[in-house]
Amino acid sequence: MQERVTTFGFEVKGEDGAARLGALTTLRGVVRTPAFMPVGTVGTVKALYFDQVKQAGADIVLANTYHLMLRPGAERVARLGGLHTFIRWEGPILTDSGGFQVMSLSKIREVSEEGVRFASHIDGSRHMLTPERAVEIQCLLGSDIQMQLDECIELPAERKEAERAMELSLRWAERARAAFAERGAPGQALFGIVQGGVDPELRRRSAEALVGMDLRGYAVGGLAVGEGQEMMLRTLEGVLPFLPAEKPRYLMGVGSPSDLIKSVQRGVDMFDCVLPTRNGRHGLAFTWNGKVNLRNAMHAEDSAPLDPQSSCPAARDYSRAYLHHLVKSGEYLGAMLLSWVNTAFYQELMAAMRTAIAERRFASWAEETLARLDGEGS
Amino acid sequence: MQERVTTFGFEVKGEDGAARLGALTTLRGVVRTPAFMPVGTVGTVKALYFDQVKQAGADIVLANTYHLMLRPGAERVARLGGLHTFIRWEGPILTDSGGFQVMSLSKIREVSEEGVRFASHIDGSRHMLTPERAVEIQCLLGSDIQMQLDECIELPAERKEAERAMELSLRWAERARAAFAERGAPGQALFGIVQGGVDPELRRRSAEALVGMDLRGYAVGGLAVGEGQEMMLRTLEGVLPFLPAEKPRYLMGVGSPSDLIKSVQRGVDMFDCVLPTRNGRHGLAFTWNGKVNLRNAMHAEDSAPLDPQSSCPAARDYSRAYLHHLVKSGEYLGAMLLSWVNTAFYQELMAAMRTAIAERRFASWAEETLARLDGEGS
Ligand SMILES: [Zn+2]
Ligand SMILES: [Zn+2]
Repeated sequence: MQERVTTFGFEVKGEDGAARLGALTTLRGVVRTPAFMPVGTVGTVKALYFDQVKQAGADIVLANTYHLMLRPGAERVARLGGLHTFIRWEGPILTDSGGFQVMSLSKIREVSEEGVRFASHIDGSRHMLTPERAVEIQCLLGSDIQMQLDECIELPAERKEAERAMELSLRWAERARAAFAERGAPGQALFGIVQGGVDPELRRRSAEALVGMDLRGYAVGGLAVGEGQEMMLRTLEGVLPFLPAEKPRYLMGVGSPSDLIKSVQRGVDMFDCVLPTRNGRHGLAFTWNGKVNLRNAMHAEDSAPLDPQSSCPAARDYSRAYLHHLVKSGEYLGAMLLSWVNTAFYQELMAAMRTAIAERRFASWAEETLARLDGEGS
Repeated sequence: MQERVTTFGFEVKGEDGAARLGALTTLRGVVRTPAFMPVGTVGTVKALYFDQVKQAGADIVLANTYHLMLRPGAERVARLGGLHTFIRWEGPILTDSGGFQVMSLSKIREVSEEGVRFASHIDGSRHMLTPERAVEIQCLLGSDIQMQLDECIELPAERKEAERAMELSLRWAERARAAFAERGAPGQALFGIVQGGVDPELRRRSAEALVGMDLRGYAVGGLAVGEGQEMMLRTLEGVLPFLPAEKPRYLMGVGSPSDLIKSVQRGVDMFDCVLPTRNGRHGLAFTWNGKVNLRNAMHAEDSAPLDPQSSCPAARDYSRAYLHHLVKSGEYLGAMLLSWVNTAFYQELMAAMRTAIAERRFASWAEETLARLDGEGS
């Protein structure tokens, strides 16, 4: 296999303790790290225009292979010019492999050495996802960063079960790597996913084996599934030392502002999570003074905005009273404004982390910020 | 009662047959007529930002007294600085009186000479709406154009029932007028509502009595409730000759593009309807080539936008394939984009009518446009 010309790259530009400031270069632009990727599940970050996502400061978004393969279908997206054209997002896109969603959304599924056979949660139709098909789908979508197919297990799990799934995921990583070497386009990247539950020994073996495959980046999967923040951070601490410093590290499906700060402090570079948009649809706003529940009657006559200093119009220009009214009335605009507020807040948070690392004051910044976020903004 | 200084005014600037080109002047700006008012039921035009409503060309929006009196409450809106401040719409607002919604939304209601007693559809709480209270609420909201409380009956109705409701509505109009004379602010206007079902004689009596009250404008109510377009237009033709040429004429709750064109052709100046936003939420788009049902599988791989000529980004920049996907997936963005498309289309339609009247070619424009809109855009 000959080496391809590629513009994919990652550079660590600064460090402060274990926290890293970096830049991920893709064909479609640079991603400043630490980065939070808004989740555009079926090709839309829920209740937002992509212009708002961009304006909020996001350099990259995530889309779900599982959802897109079922509807509208990867071949269809390819015929329509690829995912970027289809959804009108010109920046980089990371797609997951579908593995996690198969486990969480499909009630009928069967994992074998070959892959996972499952029934669509939409119409019950049967599908097979293999490591090769997951790469093929992601190539059809044309994402800039692909994830290998892995098997996510529920926690808590028996060590034996965690080991079996981790080893299967490693064999799938090898197959994904081979498939990507055939199909991947120059400038695209494939990331491996470290599995192994909350067992440090399994995590280490998984990390070392993946590093041996010399992939473009490494994700830590199977966390933030109910194990609690402390256990998540401990697992992270056990894994990160085994990942190469010169490659990006992505903690999948995480998390709360506190999760992000503490994970960056331990050396994570990339995140994704539905929390900002899901919470927005449920009337919860993230602010620099903590979470604000707009359903709360205390906001009914509060003419102050969520954050007069925010760069986000939704946080800066609309009264809490109006937001309260929209949320209580179940209006689209309530979900639209609060998803916008939260998406912007998460980007402000990442930007603040990047600044704190650059200025080598991450530890004190983190301490202050965690205390501030802890205060119930109400 | 002494005459107040007011900036409310209406000027007919051009005529073409019975169609009128005009301008309605309010304290908060000029409304170009014929005008279509997007409906902001509870203080939001569903799934749109007010910036988009403005950008689409709307000079005025409508808000519902019934909804706002129940939630967040008129006194609360007043404490928050009035409806314009609360919802962040600086242009003129017309509020209805609540009469129509009481009839259509509240299952428990009792009409008496005094007014209508009803139970909230939200929480069952009991409320009384009188002509005086309807004016008071609209003054608290601070709307630029108020509507008198009237009694809307369902069609078909016995003539006797239509007559009773019409006569009651006239007595309520007198009371509304007296209340408004006390409470209305300079620059605000109160409109009367012609009732009488589909009986020309009742409609005439209603119109003449209202004209005798010298109100700022006159609405035709109780239509578009299932009587069919032909009957609606016939009723309109029977009423409009009895309304003064120098006052604005508002056909309430209407309607389809064809309804609007044919009503303007008969001399109507103002409209409101939930059709553009409701249809948008249901996957239907209005275009210059007719209605397009985005649920239809024929759009699944259509990379063309709804209308490449549109001034509305939602109609111009997004593929039908993506819109189809969003609608099928039940995504917020589908409702957001199609509500935007339709709101913009309705404003384009009104602008085209105003131009056609100004250029004295309304009849031929209407004929061509009706034929064109009839073609199922698909
Ligand atoms: Zn998450
Ligand atoms: Zn209507």
